[in-house]
Amino acid sequence: MGEFELIRHYFAAASCAQGGEGVALGIGDDCALLSVPAGEQLAISTDTLVAGVHFPAVCDPFLLGQRSLAVAASDLAAMGATPIGFTLALTLPEVRADWLQAYARGLNQMAENCQLSLIGGDTTRGPLSLTMTVFGRVPGGQALTRSGARAGDLLCVGGELGNAAGALPLVLGERVAEAAQADPLLAHYWSPQPQLALGQALRGKATAALDISDGLLADCGHIAKASQVALQVELERLPLSAALLAFFGRAGAQQAALAGGDDYVLAFTLPEAELAPLLTAGWPIHVVGRVSAGSGVRLLDGSGQDITPHTRGYQHFKETP
Amino acid sequence: MGEFELIRHYFAAASCAQGGEGVALGIGDDCALLSVPAGEQLAISTDTLVAGVHFPAVCDPFLLGQRSLAVAASDLAAMGATPIGFTLALTLPEVRADWLQAYARGLNQMAENCQLSLIGGDTTRGPLSLTMTVFGRVPGGQALTRSGARAGDLLCVGGELGNAAGALPLVLGERVAEAAQADPLLAHYWSPQPQLALGQALRGKATAALDISDGLLADCGHIAKASQVALQVELERLPLSAALLAFFGRAGAQQAALAGGDDYVLAFTLPEAELAPLLTAGWPIHVVGRVSAGSGVRLLDGSGQDITPHTRGYQHFKETP
Repeated sequence: MGEFELIRHYFAAASCAQGGEGVALGIGDDCALLSVPAGEQLAISTDTLVAGVHFPAVCDPFLLGQRSLAVAASDLAAMGATPIGFTLALTLPEVRADWLQAYARGLNQMAENCQLSLIGGDTTRGPLSLTMTVFGRVPGGQALTRSGARAGDLLCVGGELGNAAGALPLVLGERVAEAAQADPLLAHYWSPQPQLALGQALRGKATAALDISDGLLADCGHIAKASQVALQVELERLPLSAALLAFFGRAGAQQAALAGGDDYVLAFTLPEAELAPLLTAGWPIHVVGRVSAGSGVRLLDGSGQDITPHTRGYQHFKETP
Repeated sequence: MGEFELIRHYFAAASCAQGGEGVALGIGDDCALLSVPAGEQLAISTDTLVAGVHFPAVCDPFLLGQRSLAVAASDLAAMGATPIGFTLALTLPEVRADWLQAYARGLNQMAENCQLSLIGGDTTRGPLSLTMTVFGRVPGGQALTRSGARAGDLLCVGGELGNAAGALPLVLGERVAEAAQADPLLAHYWSPQPQLALGQALRGKATAALDISDGLLADCGHIAKASQVALQVELERLPLSAALLAFFGRAGAQQAALAGGDDYVLAFTLPEAELAPLLTAGWPIHVVGRVSAGSGVRLLDGSGQDITPHTRGYQHFKETP
């Protein structure tokens, strides 16, 4: 079975040979072709997940299918982009029909959930890894970047933090927990829900945005640097789930929210006047701090004391000597 | 050093934070943003190269840098697309400054050669592999696909065939040869020249096109199938280099041209009337056969006898039972 046949056979439900919205030509030629409406820009992001680094080498391929696409699609949410499609570069040690079927089922479910069509890809033999490149469209000049935060803006997040980091000891088999506690955490790790609708709702309102992948403090550092402002995070305002609090206690849950990875929840800055209409419209927005003049990220306790730790988010490579 | 810093530091020459033509936002945010002129479409292709599968695990990183981008850019040539940019997903077992510097030099040289800007990427730790996603633009409806070949068209290629396949025994250290013989073959393997200008010149003229990556016969099979026609390849018309003939003899050189991989030369079908003006303009076009009604690919000897072998091109995965 050739490359294209392999992809087509197992990924038929997510693929779109001709004609998903914006997809002029899908899988099967040298390139896919996308049509971008006049006045819109194309948003593009690439993410690689490597077995043993970003997910356990032995894991449920259905869940991996969901997670691998969700992680990439979350970058479209962070830009306020409307999803179009994605390419999948799949490197596999061997072709196992049961593995591919289950992986494709998970991928297809997330693709449908995110309204993304599979438009192309490559399959190669080698150590298991997955590279997704996702495509979305956004009206010209309206993409949410990291660089527009202004002193006085509120610092907000789009949901509870730390659940995926909290799931990690369960994923790695280091701890066990009852289903009532474990399941909500594991769901956040394996099936993060890219906040695509929220990202689009924030167009023209949020001044800066990103998706939290390396922990709130480290990712706030990216906004602070790109926008040349300072961000204050208030410890007592972090939205923490009941499951995370029960599993880790308050201090552990706060640590997971601040420095854990894999949240894939949006963090964004918002002029104060924009908040009320968004809350009224039902968006799950939590104010966790504020933007001020200066630089860097500071963590404040309930009394406004600076308790900034030196913890940094997850980095794939540490600084070389 | 974080992901973006790593990419920026070593790939600065190829990257383009703001403003290469069509690049509205480059490396450093959640997504890159491309602007596509009204009436044009975006062409996209993804290719993965895995150490030990697509290139020797121990090889010159400068040459690998050239080859990894050229292989991907060749798909833009095959669609007749004008290059814009590319993303690089780089998985590395360790961060070695000398390796990254040399790889980036090779990559940057090919990027400049192809007029492609690095617009984003991901760096991860793991077994060495490279996934490139390339972007180009093409006037709406003018992309060269595989599906338009018509009975009566000429079957053409854009240059000598088999040189890269001929280099493989040298690359793998299975044979040695004098520099005069080895160097031209090795150059085709390590630094294939994507035929971007030829692809653009063929817009509105060629009826079908692709880049030869799996050997002429296998790739002609893709055109035949997509266009629902038959292709005849004439053995005596294959353009073969002096170096390949000297190294392999005529029969071996023909075999390399027909069933070897990695040529990254365009194969295309052309109405007979289109040929002369293109030759007059100086394009390196060789007629190697013809399109007729029917299906499949047939190889004909000098007297018109059918000598089709059952050889197939390189396939990363064979059919599962």
